[in-house]
Amino acid sequence: MTKIHSHLRPKTDAVPSLDEIFSPVSKELKAVEQVLQTWSEATSPAIKKMARQVLSRQGKLIRPGLLLLVTAHLGYKGKENIRTAAAVEAIHTASLIHDDIIDSSPTRRGQKTVVRVFGPGFSLLLGDYLFIRSISNSLAVSEKNITRILARVTEQMIEGEIEELAQSYNFNLTERQYHQIIRKKTAGLFQAICELACELGEAPEEDASALVAYGLNLGLTFQVIDDLLDLVGNPVETGKDRFSDLREGRVTLPVILAFKNSSPEMKNLMKLLLEKLRVKPEEKSFSDLLRLLENNGALELTFKQAEKLAERARRAVLKLVPSIYRQSLLGLVDFVLYRKK
Amino acid sequence: MTKIHSHLRPKTDAVPSLDEIFSPVSKELKAVEQVLQTWSEATSPAIKKMARQVLSRQGKLIRPGLLLLVTAHLGYKGKENIRTAAAVEAIHTASLIHDDIIDSSPTRRGQKTVVRVFGPGFSLLLGDYLFIRSISNSLAVSEKNITRILARVTEQMIEGEIEELAQSYNFNLTERQYHQIIRKKTAGLFQAICELACELGEAPEEDASALVAYGLNLGLTFQVIDDLLDLVGNPVETGKDRFSDLREGRVTLPVILAFKNSSPEMKNLMKLLLEKLRVKPEEKSFSDLLRLLENNGALELTFKQAEKLAERARRAVLKLVPSIYRQSLLGLVDFVLYRKK
Repeated sequence: MTKIHSHLRPKTDAVPSLDEIFSPVSKELKAVEQVLQTWSEATSPAIKKMARQVLSRQGKLIRPGLLLLVTAHLGYKGKENIRTAAAVEAIHTASLIHDDIIDSSPTRRGQKTVVRVFGPGFSLLLGDYLFIRSISNSLAVSEKNITRILARVTEQMIEGEIEELAQSYNFNLTERQYHQIIRKKTAGLFQAICELACELGEAPEEDASALVAYGLNLGLTFQVIDDLLDLVGNPVETGKDRFSDLREGRVTLPVILAFKNSSPEMKNLMKLLLEKLRVKPEEKSFSDLLRLLENNGALELTFKQAEKLAERARRAVLKLVPSIYRQSLLGLVDFVLYRKK
Repeated sequence: MTKIHSHLRPKTDAVPSLDEIFSPVSKELKAVEQVLQTWSEATSPAIKKMARQVLSRQGKLIRPGLLLLVTAHLGYKGKENIRTAAAVEAIHTASLIHDDIIDSSPTRRGQKTVVRVFGPGFSLLLGDYLFIRSISNSLAVSEKNITRILARVTEQMIEGEIEELAQSYNFNLTERQYHQIIRKKTAGLFQAICELACELGEAPEEDASALVAYGLNLGLTFQVIDDLLDLVGNPVETGKDRFSDLREGRVTLPVILAFKNSSPEMKNLMKLLLEKLRVKPEEKSFSDLLRLLENNGALELTFKQAEKLAERARRAVLKLVPSIYRQSLLGLVDFVLYRKK
């Protein structure tokens, strides 16, 4: 693995790949994939067909990988991290399936979305099924706080989604409100993963609080970069359509920062463009808006925020004793910050 | 309460009202409503508004009422039946909200459906929220099997819905397949309610097995009558649109029995009508089909099946020692069988 100096911002080409990052837990990560496969086997035919397709289209597996790295760092020797990591991935998948229904998204992970393949009815129910099955399976983990943490974070994610939807096209959304929403909708799960791992690995209190701070800031970084990728990402790499946030009226950080740093006239121009996109989502208006965001520095400011959050994550994780797993946790910060997908 | 002789089929006008049936547990049922009210308070503003509306539009409260009657019969003295009954009602509500999205139903409980009021995005997320919150809240109940039973039955309900959706417009659906589906989708929850109550009330094994059989058959009766009400119910009483099963291509018991008792020509005629409804859901075709189902005795046969299931429920509950609660459980069978809504 590339050696990362935590106090230096690495050159983009020094960013480790996920394979490198997760190599110390690659065996366990395989086991998680296998557990998810068994989920799709042990069910009725109608679900089996869908679940097999959905659970085999693995994404980046960042969330289960993170859990495994933390339990490994904590010296956890049991097997319940595998089951817990599978539950976490399934909750994440369920939430993506439901998101794609709400947004009518055509592509995800470089393929047709579940809603495009199976239609909204089946997709809705499949999401329900994965949500409940995750919580339900976690009851078999002997540490009973596991289910509690999973249920609470899932509830919080859904709350975040609802709040975000309620704020669609609210161009007065503040940075503070934005942060509250992404904390619930995205970062909460990263934080919860660290809590779950600490629960399993019986982390000493100091490690636990460092890891919770790490998870939270890693998750916030993840979402801010997601906002950027929606604007400047390459669909071939991200696996999803560009401008879907704008299309759905989601007021993301680049837009908030652009408003903040614009003259009243410029603000009005942007609002006009955004409203125009609402009625008529034309490619030309998207690129006009993108140019505005670029020119007034909003994209750069957004990345700066991501860097700041990433630095907080790094600092938190450096409180742990050194280990190859800690090294991977540091690498993960860079991956999340510099990711193209 | 009207006295019901279990061995006699009561005249319809002797069927007790739900108020009468639940009068021995009316105080507890009020407490359940209050718990559900607190759910909508203790959450973020965007959810609060929706949850308040949704949770205040109470339905018949048959499911929480059933749980309370059983725990009362078992002499349960704790308070956790209230919380458990609230979770059961919320799971039921969540599943109705999602059903109405899938079916694009316009009315439910005599009002606009949640999806019509708040749109599909919010409704989907509100359903998710209620599902997870139900399971999550149940973790506070000290008997840890409670969460396990709730999660398992919710999973099963969703499985049933998926299987039903997969069988849409399958006119070769057998009675056996139909029973498997409604067992999962509807009757499982009634059965699980009895299991939950037995768990809380520490029922002796004989009582538990009688109550489980009661719950299952009560639930099956409920669904078979639901199928009938979709055809012959009065929308003013049922609070929902007629023919919604046919509109969605759901092959219900009356249709299955009609196929079973028809000549090949008649079968073809019915299939043609059903296919016609698929493309062009006209009032006239609905009434033509209804007349066919009436004339070939399918409606009567369906009711006969419901009577048989109801009788099984009665026989099961008569194994319990007599009590005012047992009397109510018997009354509930009649209510479910003869209900108009």
